[in-house]
Amino acid sequence: MPKIADLETPCVLIDAARVEANLARAQAHANANGYKLRPHIKTHKSIRFARRQIELGAVGITAQKLGEAEVMADAGIADIFVPYNIVGAGKLARLAALNARVTLSVTADSADVVAGYARTASTSKPLTVLVECDTGGRRCGVQSPADAVALARMIAGGPSLRFGGLMSYPPRGKMEEADRWLGQVKAEIERDGIAVPVVTSGNTPDMWHTGDHNVTERRPGTYIYFDRGQVSFGVASWADCALTVLATVVSRPTPTRIVLDAGSKALSSDLFGQTGYGAFQDRPSFVLTSLSEEHGVIELDAASQWPAVGERVHIVPNHACVVSNLFDRVYLAGTGGEVEIMPVDARGRSD
Amino acid sequence: MPKIADLETPCVLIDAARVEANLARAQAHANANGYKLRPHIKTHKSIRFARRQIELGAVGITAQKLGEAEVMADAGIADIFVPYNIVGAGKLARLAALNARVTLSVTADSADVVAGYARTASTSKPLTVLVECDTGGRRCGVQSPADAVALARMIAGGPSLRFGGLMSYPPRGKMEEADRWLGQVKAEIERDGIAVPVVTSGNTPDMWHTGDHNVTERRPGTYIYFDRGQVSFGVASWADCALTVLATVVSRPTPTRIVLDAGSKALSSDLFGQTGYGAFQDRPSFVLTSLSEEHGVIELDAASQWPAVGERVHIVPNHACVVSNLFDRVYLAGTGGEVEIMPVDARGRSD
Repeated sequence: MPKIADLETPCVLIDAARVEANLARAQAHANANGYKLRPHIKTHKSIRFARRQIELGAVGITAQKLGEAEVMADAGIADIFVPYNIVGAGKLARLAALNARVTLSVTADSADVVAGYARTASTSKPLTVLVECDTGGRRCGVQSPADAVALARMIAGGPSLRFGGLMSYPPRGKMEEADRWLGQVKAEIERDGIAVPVVTSGNTPDMWHTGDHNVTERRPGTYIYFDRGQVSFGVASWADCALTVLATVVSRPTPTRIVLDAGSKALSSDLFGQTGYGAFQDRPSFVLTSLSEEHGVIELDAASQWPAVGERVHIVPNHACVVSNLFDRVYLAGTGGEVEIMPVDARGRSD
Repeated sequence: MPKIADLETPCVLIDAARVEANLARAQAHANANGYKLRPHIKTHKSIRFARRQIELGAVGITAQKLGEAEVMADAGIADIFVPYNIVGAGKLARLAALNARVTLSVTADSADVVAGYARTASTSKPLTVLVECDTGGRRCGVQSPADAVALARMIAGGPSLRFGGLMSYPPRGKMEEADRWLGQVKAEIERDGIAVPVVTSGNTPDMWHTGDHNVTERRPGTYIYFDRGQVSFGVASWADCALTVLATVVSRPTPTRIVLDAGSKALSSDLFGQTGYGAFQDRPSFVLTSLSEEHGVIELDAASQWPAVGERVHIVPNHACVVSNLFDRVYLAGTGGEVEIMPVDARGRSD
């Protein structure tokens, strides 16, 4: 088995023990607090890790795009939620094919989207549709409880559709507000005699939140790896970060400048609310100050001999989810420094 | 042959006629102004386009990383410049193997890097090494003409190395300063009796610059596609932009909000000096105001019915080079709307 020292840089290392600890801790929190965990696989895009999340107790997975869901279905993942408006004839045909072979659910936030589902879905196996509610995230979602109720009625009334419940992606720190919003809608729908089987919310930044009255499922993704952004949000410690980019120092043009062989094509340009583009795992004060496509530059405040040309450093990126999407494979590292190649199975499947 | 209307979104479209015009115009400028063109393939990472650039008169290609160069060498591209410090035993072995089969040149900006080359290269086919000069770009490169001269002497004195000349990546708008800097170094090296066969500079933002006295080659990359960034720099018009991301409107939650199925995993988060993350090709006032991984959000100043859910839009991204690196394939579009699949051969080859 190859060792970390054998790898070419830049590459992505995944600390297997940290992943296992991160997955177990999240599942334990879900079990202790009475909600179901449906991890978002956008972060790892890996069949192996999706299976492991289910083994540990997840009720299924969340995939943001149909392309990701297809990869996971091909691998035998049986229960998939795609919290997305699926639009267009080609995508709707793929959706119907996917619904025929797995337990699938999707979302809608408009009558147009519901109409597309109704046209495509089959009465022999109705498509489960949840209503997406904009509880403050300002992305997709109906804008008012009244609109949510109207859409739920439309779904419940379609012979080829099944009303699956409510979904929201609340902004960070707004879980309570989202829970109240969703609770109000749920009560109104139930007054109509329509059951609301699932209320799904949540994200990694608020994964330790407790006290929801209505939310039944949560969909964190980043928690498998964590990253510099999540540490800054206070949800994880630096020692929880399981994904690093291994890079080599290729130039020390000045006593204060360090140039690495990892740029925006290895780390992405995501700031994710941070200053700089990532930091050294072992010395978090070394922050990448600028990136070009294949160079990462650190401009230090004071001269430093270390690190010299040829030294290798582990960078904790700002945002792990966009980093794994840049690489066809990552390296799963054991405690002895041995590594195993792991494909990023759904890489690039934004379609 | 499929049509644009058949494609799933998000995907990358390349306007074949615009590419051809962009390539021809750049080559004509090089011919008219007496410098050689060595296009940077980082932008397209495509064997087909590298071949076309050479057919039109390029003297060879530039590849930023060894991994990209290997892909191009495998495809029969015979003359490759890698303007990068190649560091580490694994990379140096790959470099030696590449040097054995193509006309290869690399750069160095320190004695450490030159020493690595000298250890690895073969006296039977010396490795051509240029000295990288930091003429203001603050990335890699020697900091003074004296250091450049010393490094040139070291390279010229090595039995397995050949001094190939000088290289710089000047910041935008600083071609004249770079030319003077490089000219001074060139004169000093020549006084030592060492020939300086190549002086390579340049980039896309300054591709129409004329009047250099010392520069013999230039390495623009982005000019094959151009992008929103280059248009803002004044080097191209909106109508020259050959790469667009085709996206579908998936939600209109409010009269001023448009949500597209292209987020940072399709457009990247590169700002490239811009406000927002890309704009509609046909209506450049529609600017993506925020991105999440799989959603692009436009918040308009005033209500607009258009575009409705299901409409498709063409987005000119801020920075084309990082967008092609997100996709395994792009679609080459002819004038009649027919498309041909083209692999992004060196995608992800940052190694």
